[in-house]
Amino acid sequence: MSRTVFVNGEFVPEADARISVFDRGFLFADAVYEVTAVIGGKLVDYAAHQARLRRSLAELDMASPAGDDELLALHRELVRRNGIDLGSVYLQVSRGAADRDFIWPPAETGPGLVLFTQTRASLESPEAERGLRVAVAPDLRWGRRDIKTTQLLYASMAKSQARRDGFDDVWMTENGFVTEGSSNNAYILTQDGTIVTPSLSRSILPGITRSAVLHGAAEAGLAIEERPFTVEEAQGAREAFITSAGAFVTAVVEIDGVRVGDGRPGDLARRLRRVYLDEAMRTAI
Amino acid sequence: MSRTVFVNGEFVPEADARISVFDRGFLFADAVYEVTAVIGGKLVDYAAHQARLRRSLAELDMASPAGDDELLALHRELVRRNGIDLGSVYLQVSRGAADRDFIWPPAETGPGLVLFTQTRASLESPEAERGLRVAVAPDLRWGRRDIKTTQLLYASMAKSQARRDGFDDVWMTENGFVTEGSSNNAYILTQDGTIVTPSLSRSILPGITRSAVLHGAAEAGLAIEERPFTVEEAQGAREAFITSAGAFVTAVVEIDGVRVGDGRPGDLARRLRRVYLDEAMRTAI
Repeated sequence: MSRTVFVNGEFVPEADARISVFDRGFLFADAVYEVTAVIGGKLVDYAAHQARLRRSLAELDMASPAGDDELLALHRELVRRNGIDLGSVYLQVSRGAADRDFIWPPAETGPGLVLFTQTRASLESPEAERGLRVAVAPDLRWGRRDIKTTQLLYASMAKSQARRDGFDDVWMTENGFVTEGSSNNAYILTQDGTIVTPSLSRSILPGITRSAVLHGAAEAGLAIEERPFTVEEAQGAREAFITSAGAFVTAVVEIDGVRVGDGRPGDLARRLRRVYLDEAMRTAI
Repeated sequence: MSRTVFVNGEFVPEADARISVFDRGFLFADAVYEVTAVIGGKLVDYAAHQARLRRSLAELDMASPAGDDELLALHRELVRRNGIDLGSVYLQVSRGAADRDFIWPPAETGPGLVLFTQTRASLESPEAERGLRVAVAPDLRWGRRDIKTTQLLYASMAKSQARRDGFDDVWMTENGFVTEGSSNNAYILTQDGTIVTPSLSRSILPGITRSAVLHGAAEAGLAIEERPFTVEEAQGAREAFITSAGAFVTAVVEIDGVRVGDGRPGDLARRLRRVYLDEAMRTAI
């Protein structure tokens, strides 16, 4: 099956979906992105993803590639053309193509805009059902992880290494504390029943699913602490889990070879996943 | 003037020099590069650039895009086709195009290979003649700067900000010490006549020009210390300078608004530049 991809103003077959080698996204990782889940053909948490995109662009003085209405229409058109019922829409904005120079090109250099879809077979996955086994690795990413850029090499390296070592994913640590998974936020449920996740800073991405799940947990009256936690604290926790636009809420059952709780997905992770998916489907557009 | 660019096996006009939007260089900054100076139509320090490329590829488990002979032939052919007397050849290898996934694709995914040229008007530049004024900024790049990847957004941001603030470039600092310039190695000459530059580690790129210049300085019997130095030590030094494949050896005359020495390019920087260029031209291939 060949997808239809949107590239700089045109819908094209994926084999023709190409950008200039001078695109700064290719030469300098001078690009930001968003991935929006699609459930039942509708966009999940769309407004929040677009707000974060606007923030990423502003942090990097990058021009907007299109207005809000146009971006939404592009998402919907791509979902429609590719018949996506369950999957995601990936959107990337780069600073555009210019002769190679570390100095940012003039503002009139148009930004590059690419969107493509990916499908998924099911809302569930074997991994989510049995829970993830995560490795632990030092977080060697850059210092502005709050901006969602395409500088993803380290996260990709670390996750690939974890897979080769027999794990499902990796949790990264800095100064002794867990920052994030390879492309997801990290949480524990302490033995006394408090949800703990790192507070927002330049060290982690402000996850859209993170925000929605914490909102849902707070509405349900659950105790939440936004503070750092160590690998040791996580290994001794009652539960551990991750959130992301792709994984929704997924239990973590083993960290660096140590079982969390009884080694099965915990009740809270399963409940938060259900609540999140219900709300996601209810509010998808 | 339209350049001829090499993209994945073909020489094409630059307007047609395009890669897939699924290239991992574009989506994950999963790519490494080299820039080789061209003087008199010949490649400067070519063997050292190729050795560093091989090391970058090995560190990232990335497949080689071509053998040594073929890569040299590509460099020469591109220089010839574009009539480059003075300039550079840029080479980028990415992990190739695959559907988007943090997990590295199978090894049989062919690497992507792009080469293009850039010209320069003169070996000299007004900046080099008057010396650079550099800003100072925290080094927020990732933790494996010894691998020459395209994760260049921060260096690009910091240099662009320095230019907007009226500087020529930026020196980055970490834990109180200078690491590098935006795309060059940093040096001082102490008041007692010792050349000081940070020792090789994961915090800096092992510069090809750095290696050549230090070799030349050692042969000339100059005192060299590879150790960290602070901004304050640099501001109080007799001279300061940078090296890179594009800047060769260029004096730094002002650091964060403080003049170094008498505020003019120092004798050592000018001498090392001359010695380096003589040797570069003598050994270019």
